Amino acid sequence: MNSIKILGLVAATLTTISFLPQVVQSWKTKDVKGISLPMYTIFTFGVFLWLMYGLFVKDLPVILANSFIFIFASLILILKIKYR
Amino acid sequence: MNSIKILGLVAATLTTISFLPQVVQSWKTKDVKGISLPMYTIFTFGVFLWLMYGLFVKDLPVILANSFIFIFASLILILKIKYR
Repeated sequence: MNSIKILGLVAATLTTISFLPQVVQSWKTKDVKGISLPMYTIFTFGVFLWLMYGLFVKDLPVILANSFIFIFASLILILKIKYR
Repeated sequence: MNSIKILGLVAATLTTISFLPQVVQSWKTKDVKGISLPMYTIFTFGVFLWLMYGLFVKDLPVILANSFIFIFASLILILKIKYR
């Protein structure tokens, strides 16, 4: 694997796992007032479309990254709606 | 342009602009307690790497989307550090 591919993989891994601390914090503290509902509504839907796009073009990294981000973003959106 | 490319463009546009309501809300309310600092630290760095990746592979949609997301994520990160 060349170094540019590795750079892309590291970028995808970081942007994917970054949502996990937000899920844990919102879950534990139930403080979601500062989180934007329009952001997570638009973002979660956009990530779902990314996932569809990845499935259509059969791009495994796009499918994998967006599957995880979709789960994390959905959880944050659910916590936001539940505790707002 | 075929419909799969349009799907990808819509997905990229939605995930990019979704961060704008969060920037506006955090700016106006100064309530950033519910926002995860580790999330935006890791995410902003990851988006920066995505931008580098886009520049290396000369992919204009990746460059454009990640330039805007980088600006929005940086602003949220700055507001989080300022008002925490």
